This record gives sequence, structure tokens and C-alpha cells, in this order.
Amino acid sequence: MADGEEGIGRQVIAGAGEWEGWTLIRGGDPFEDLTGPFYMREEPDGTRRSAFRAETKHLNGSGNLHGGCLMTFADFSLFMIAHEALNGVESVTVSLNGEFVGPAREGDLIESAGQVVRAGRSLVFIRGIISSGGEPMLSFSGVVKKLRPRST
Amino acid sequence: MADGEEGIGRQVIAGAGEWEGWTLIRGGDPFEDLTGPFYMREEPDGTRRSAFRAETKHLNGSGNLHGGCLMTFADFSLFMIAHEALNGVESVTVSLNGEFVGPAREGDLIESAGQVVRAGRSLVFIRGIISSGGEPMLSFSGVVKKLRPRST
Amino acid sequence: MADGEEGIGRQVIAGAGEWEGWTLIRGGDPFEDLTGPFYMREEPDGTRRSAFRAETKHLNGSGNLHGGCLMTFADFSLFMIAHEALNGVESVTVSLNGEFVGPAREGDLIESAGQVVRAGRSLVFIRGIISSGGEPMLSFSGVVKKLRPRST
Amino acid sequence: MADGEEGIGRQVIAGAGEWEGWTLIRGGDPFEDLTGPFYMREEPDGTRRSAFRAETKHLNGSGNLHGGCLMTFADFSLFMIAHEALNGVESVTVSLNGEFVGPAREGDLIESAGQVVRAGRSLVFIRGIISSGGEPMLSFSGVVKKLRPRST
Repeated sequence: MADGEEGIGRQVIAGAGEWEGWTLIRGGDPFEDLTGPFYMREEPDGTRRSAFRAETKHLNGSGNLHGGCLMTFADFSLFMIAHEALNGVESVTVSLNGEFVGPAREGDLIESAGQVVRAGRSLVFIRGIISSGGEPMLSFSGVVKKLRPRST
Repeated sequence: MADGEEGIGRQVIAGAGEWEGWTLIRGGDPFEDLTGPFYMREEPDGTRRSAFRAETKHLNGSGNLHGGCLMTFADFSLFMIAHEALNGVESVTVSLNGEFVGPAREGDLIESAGQVVRAGRSLVFIRGIISSGGEPMLSFSGVVKKLRPRST
Repeated sequence: MADGEEGIGRQVIAGAGEWEGWTLIRGGDPFEDLTGPFYMREEPDGTRRSAFRAETKHLNGSGNLHGGCLMTFADFSLFMIAHEALNGVESVTVSLNGEFVGPAREGDLIESAGQVVRAGRSLVFIRGIISSGGEPMLSFSGVVKKLRPRST
Repeated sequence: MADGEEGIGRQVIAGAGEWEGWTLIRGGDPFEDLTGPFYMREEPDGTRRSAFRAETKHLNGSGNLHGGCLMTFADFSLFMIAHEALNGVESVTVSLNGEFVGPAREGDLIESAGQVVRAGRSLVFIRGIISSGGEPMLSFSGVVKKLRPRST
């Protein structure tokens, strides 16, 4: 994601079945519509977890989750984690670092959680971990820059 | 990508039209089939450039290339750049870092080039730049680990 | 640090005064003797915190802690955090990433804490935060590689 | 370094002996006075190389250059490489990433060179390589943020 709350045609959809209690955001970022669906859930403490179910399309040639898929989900997660700090201001990713610590397979539930390390006036620093079944898969950190709010 | 030369159904296809002289690898990594097609060209000096044409599906809600798309292409590029150093040994990405320095829009030709900084016995260190029209978009670096060759 | 438990002349010294309960390691790494002293404390849960007091020598020209000083302390911290996972095997830093989120001044107590995200057979993945007075200064992550134990 | 051209007592000294043609900056950053001296040379094309001679004080317990020393020199190098882009504006390091690809020993000449990948209005993106005898030791990248020019 390279955008806070923008996007023509953006729909917020309540999850159903295994995604009851989760929220799906569609129609905002074409690349996330392609690679997702990625779900989000706001916890009682205000933090936002993200999740998706690994499908065949997310895999590499070894049958593990593709590194690009994990980095895409990490980029999505940056903006979920920083939601409150970004406060609806259009924002872009400045840097994203990831260390791949473990694999996941088709059918696995992939989750991310993290924290805002610091929210400055223009730069917001985030770190998080993507995991599956309690086992870490990707340790990531990123810097997001708030752009000037557009006048309306 | 998290794999050197593996993949059932992997096809090497010669590019046509604007991709004449380029090679397309399909059927190896489902996530690259989804997010690509990504092309590759071997230069006279043995280095490998990669490229793709930005489509609607690659964008974020602001109409720029999605950060996850760039990181996916960077991960793909790691393995193209390190092709000779990896020498067909199954390999996985250990870390991938990216700094987003500029945007790209639909229709732009996106290219990557880079170098193996060092090829060790098990770890290969790569850095590269993704650019469009000569303007840099992503500066990336990564570490790839060679796994033990599988016995046949 | 690029070494687990090695070093001729390495001394483990009990801290005194404000460092009561902390341990000082000297004589092992000349660069840490130069830039430290860096202290370490093992918590009841087995984790290891590190700390030092910011002196004039640690500063940059603006009177804030120098970025190189923070990265040096982060590198030191990697090996403290991963102490149990490294298990005395000689080890080297493969990568170290840091995001500078806040400043510190002379006289401040600088602390680090973190966790092993994953300990593999050869690679150990660590992340941590350096803070002062509860305010984060550096978010860091690193990969450490265990070398083969030397025969004796 | 976390500062462009500031520092009370900052002296620019012409190098002598093996450092003829190089420039030494002292008295600006106490941590660089401690860990250096680090030299700088402006090339005919306007780029700036940096260098120092590895001494005992720069080593770790294995007799190799300490990772923190390399990261300190990388942080110094960021500001040398970006000198023209920063244009004297006070600046701070936002992020610094390094991959350690090879060792160096006491007495080795350690050099860095790099490039500004992109200079934005507030953020400058740099990458470089630290090497010794033509062999790479550290591949690094960093983001530097220009602070508002102080009024005089």
C-alpha cells in the first residue's frame, strides 16, 4: 500500500465464515485486490491485526509462500498498524525491510501484528512480525511518510 | 522467488513484440504468474536485467505502482542477478531491504539491474536498483541462502 | 561484535555504583573497549538487557548520540540478546538494519532489549529496540551466522 | 554523523604522508574523533570517497574489523556521499542498513564509495560499498533527512 484511506471504489466489507469479526478492504488498491484478500481486525486495545489464508496463487515453486507475497502483506500491514498515527493522511512507504525466518504452506493462516515504534510529524516508524500458527515467518520494519493533506 | 531453478511446469518462453530479445519464465512460481509477467534478458557481459510493463493490477489506490509489487519484482530480481552465483542450487531469500525513492504509473516500463556484491559458500549478497525511464524507483539489497542440493 | 565468546584477555567484571547488578565485559573486543563500556544484565526470564551511560565521546556535532554509536551498541546488543541461541559458537553479523527514531543527549542512560525471532541451525534472527527513559531511539534487526565450532 | 556541516571546533585538515590529497575533518563529531580519523577525498567528478586505516582499536575479538566500526564508517560515509545534495543543511540519519560481506584485518586500508540514489526535498537516499583492497566488506544503504535550515 502507498496510500492511507484513498481509492475510488474502496469498499469496507464485513468478513463471514472463518473471517467473522474481520474486515476486508477491497476496491482501493488493485494490487491488493490481486494478491489478497487481506483481512484486518481491530483489537480491544486499538491495535490492528491483519491476516489472510495462503492459497496456491501465493506460493513459489517450492510450494512455500513467495517472498514477494510476504513483503506485499508486510507493506499492507504497515498501514494497518500505523492506522491511528497516519490519521487518514495520504502516506507512502519510504523503506521496508524484511527478514525471512520461516516458511508457510498452502492452507496456512498467515497473520501479522506490530507496533508503531514512533510517530513523528512526517515520518512514522513501524515494526511487526508475520507469523503462522504462532511460528514467525517474517520480521519486518518500515518507515512511512505522511504527505501533505490535500485541500478539499 | 524462493527457489533457483525448480518448479513443475516451468516454461521458458521467448518474448515477442516489445519483448523481443527477452525471456519469460512461467509456470514455476504461482505468485509470479499472478503478479507478472516478469521478463529477463541476459546481457553480453553475463549480467541479467529484468523488466515488466506496469498494468492497472500493479497499482495502489493513488495510481502509483504498489510497494508490494516493487518488492515482489525486487525478490524476483535477486534471483536473476544472482543466477550465476546460485548455479542452479535451490535457494531462499534470507533478507530483503528496499528504499522507495520514486513513483511509477500505469504503462511505464519497469526495469531492474544489479550486482552480486559477494558470493559466499552458502550466502549470496545482492544489491540492485529498480528504475523507470532512467529514474530510480527502488534501491534494494538482499541476502540469498543456498540450500543443500537435493539428491536425485 | 563479530564473535560469541572469544577474545584473549576477556574479563567479566561485576558493575558497581549505578551498575550494581550489571556485568561489564572488557578486554574481548578492542572496539567495544573504545566505544563502551557497555553493560549487560540477565533478567530472571533469561533475556539479556544491555545499557551504557551517554558520554561526550558518544556524541555528534549536534550534541546528540552519534548514529554510529547507536549502531555499535545495536551490534553489541545482537550478541547479548542471542546469547543463549548462539551457545558459545563463534558467530558473525550478517546484516544489521536500524531506524533512528529519536535522539539522546549526554548523561542519558541508553538501554537495549530485544528477542530472538528465530534461531536456525546456522542463522539467528534478532530484533530489538534501543531506548532512553522509556523513549525509543533505534529500532534494529539483525542476522547473525554461527560459524563452525573450532576444534580444540 | 547526524549533522551536515555543524560543530563547534570543527577543523578541516589536509592529510599528509599516505593521506596526501585527502582531507581530515576533526573536532566536529566527538564519536568520529574517537573512532576515526576518517579521511575524505573529492574526486574530479565531484563524488567523495572516504577512507581510514584499520588499527587495533577498530577490531573485534577475532581480530577482524568490528561491525560497529563498519557501521560508524558507513554513517560517516552517508554524509560524505550526500554532501552536495545536503548542501549544508543540518541533517540526520533516518535509517541505515548494512550487509557484512567480508572481513578486514589490522593495517588494511578501508575505503567507501557510493552514490545518491535520489535527493528529494526532505529525504536523501544513499547507497554505497565499503571495501578493502578491492574486496567488498559492507554493502550499505541509508536515508538522511534534511532538517529545516536554522535562521541566522
